[in-house]
Amino acid sequence: MSETSGVIVPQGPVLALVGATGAVGTVMIDIINGRESVPWGEIRLIASPRSAGKKITVRGEELTVIALSPEAFDGVDIAMFDVPDEVSAEWAPIAAAKGAVAVDNSGAFRMDPEVPLVVPEVNADQIGARPKGIIANPNCTTLSMMAALGALHREFELRELVVASYQAASGGGQAAIDRLYAEIAALAGKEVGVRAGDVRETLEAAGLPVSDSPFPAPLALNVVPWAGSLKDEGWTSEELKVRNESRKILGIPELKVSATCVRVPVVTTHSLAVHATFAREVTVEQAHKIFAAQPSIVLVDDPAAKQFPTPADVVGGDPTYVGRVRQALDFPNTLDFFVCGDNLRKGAALNTYEIAEELAARL
Amino acid sequence: MSETSGVIVPQGPVLALVGATGAVGTVMIDIINGRESVPWGEIRLIASPRSAGKKITVRGEELTVIALSPEAFDGVDIAMFDVPDEVSAEWAPIAAAKGAVAVDNSGAFRMDPEVPLVVPEVNADQIGARPKGIIANPNCTTLSMMAALGALHREFELRELVVASYQAASGGGQAAIDRLYAEIAALAGKEVGVRAGDVRETLEAAGLPVSDSPFPAPLALNVVPWAGSLKDEGWTSEELKVRNESRKILGIPELKVSATCVRVPVVTTHSLAVHATFAREVTVEQAHKIFAAQPSIVLVDDPAAKQFPTPADVVGGDPTYVGRVRQALDFPNTLDFFVCGDNLRKGAALNTYEIAEELAARL
Repeated sequence: MSETSGVIVPQGPVLALVGATGAVGTVMIDIINGRESVPWGEIRLIASPRSAGKKITVRGEELTVIALSPEAFDGVDIAMFDVPDEVSAEWAPIAAAKGAVAVDNSGAFRMDPEVPLVVPEVNADQIGARPKGIIANPNCTTLSMMAALGALHREFELRELVVASYQAASGGGQAAIDRLYAEIAALAGKEVGVRAGDVRETLEAAGLPVSDSPFPAPLALNVVPWAGSLKDEGWTSEELKVRNESRKILGIPELKVSATCVRVPVVTTHSLAVHATFAREVTVEQAHKIFAAQPSIVLVDDPAAKQFPTPADVVGGDPTYVGRVRQALDFPNTLDFFVCGDNLRKGAALNTYEIAEELAARL
Repeated sequence: MSETSGVIVPQGPVLALVGATGAVGTVMIDIINGRESVPWGEIRLIASPRSAGKKITVRGEELTVIALSPEAFDGVDIAMFDVPDEVSAEWAPIAAAKGAVAVDNSGAFRMDPEVPLVVPEVNADQIGARPKGIIANPNCTTLSMMAALGALHREFELRELVVASYQAASGGGQAAIDRLYAEIAALAGKEVGVRAGDVRETLEAAGLPVSDSPFPAPLALNVVPWAGSLKDEGWTSEELKVRNESRKILGIPELKVSATCVRVPVVTTHSLAVHATFAREVTVEQAHKIFAAQPSIVLVDDPAAKQFPTPADVVGGDPTYVGRVRQALDFPNTLDFFVCGDNLRKGAALNTYEIAEELAARL
């Protein structure tokens, strides 16, 4: 065996992690390190040539990152991709041609009818049909509510969804996290946010003009109703992903969806205010029971004790946290609730890894 | 005339401002100072005995704050109240008994069927019928979207409303603003928000335990799905206000409403993601035209140029700022849009003062 591999289970399948040094890749390695046991015969870390040679400890063994190349996939059974869309678009098919199943966390293949879009606790049954050898991982915003909606849909048949998001900076990668911290530091101790533009001006004076930001407006002491890119009729790519991916994952092609995606000054963990209408009546008690029975959901819903999920209180965790469950007063068969999910874990790395685990069990 | 009054128009009506030294009262004085002309014969500043004697300059004249007492309302034509619910509940009727029209910004009278709830550009016609001598000013969250919804309702008949709020700290008064600034200062320069509870712990270490906060969770680097107090079935008082006040102001007793109210780390200016369904079809072009024609609305909606309203960019302004207007893809006759409104101005002081101006024109 080569110097770049770490033997874990000599006879197990070979797992490759493409994008091992990125924000999501780093969380992926944390997740692998945190697992009680793993099924892998070898774990291979792959990244851009710039990061090749870097050493990273995985399950007690120091691995050397190797450069992305067709040969890097030799002997790989499952290749997880946490790279930009265009890199996945080019390289996932190469990995698949080499015989690996590519589990891709980019947006490149999510809406491809020949690529299943999988959240294991919702539609694990779709893992088997993968004519392209590629399985896609959903967008982090969509993923934050899928465990909760999937569980309710099984019992009550989801029909309509109105969603407003409170999305964390880290959805935009490490540069976006750094920007938020820098803005907070520049604004601390200043009484800004009381006059139009004073936040912008203070950032500019601190050498942080908005033109240099990954966000189109100040994020600290602000909220920004924009995520992704502009699509038809004023909708953003992020809002359309919530609609289209929810339909595909839940298997409801006619699901009615309106989403408004808003970035908030939170480091990590997306939150969503969800207004969901079902074919049948659903009470708060029934919803609580269903959420409590779902291993990937933690119910935090005791308003009398002011218990509800907030991003800063749940970040770093694997589950989806659900609270503020209310039966709509004026809409039949409708629940309003609030969910928080770590967008780097269940929203990205964790779900991708859970798909890989599911595949390993079937190999 | 007494030493506590400032003559502006010798023959004009007498205006009293009760709660002159509070957060909203201070903005009220800014608004009065900013007006080109005012109709008042006298402006009288009233506050708790603790603040009596304080000097405040209004339109170039130094006025002395007087203590709240029945006699303080002698000769007053219009008394604006910016005080807690229980103070309004006791004193607005006293002012009315003394012959003043009380314009009350508390929650004490809003849902009283004998008290009109007024947003001048929406239902100024209701100002005349005030059997108790009291007119109520709506809750700041409701107010942030009323100009936009009122204008659309006149043309298309509003039927359903699903709203998620992004509410500023200052909705909780000066202590809430101070808390947000203190939290920002304590967290600056620290890489928190990545592990559950690390924001809470860092605040605690800085002498800012959440138990001392006006908010039930950290607000900096967080969002908190809670505003107001707990009411029936898990709904908050704030969410029910959005429902009940919208129905009353718009005159649609059967309006279907679901709201989720969330506090965000913004100093001032509430934002709302609005999903509004009408009796008739409405296009983005029609909505743009209606918004552009409304003097109290500024349309900021050019997504190709990344132009949309954000709280930090519009705070301190009088209008409601509207953007991200989209026709819902799956819901007939439905628009999704995003509004920002300064919760201390139009959301409180400005609307109260506009009611007083409207009254003055009719005296």
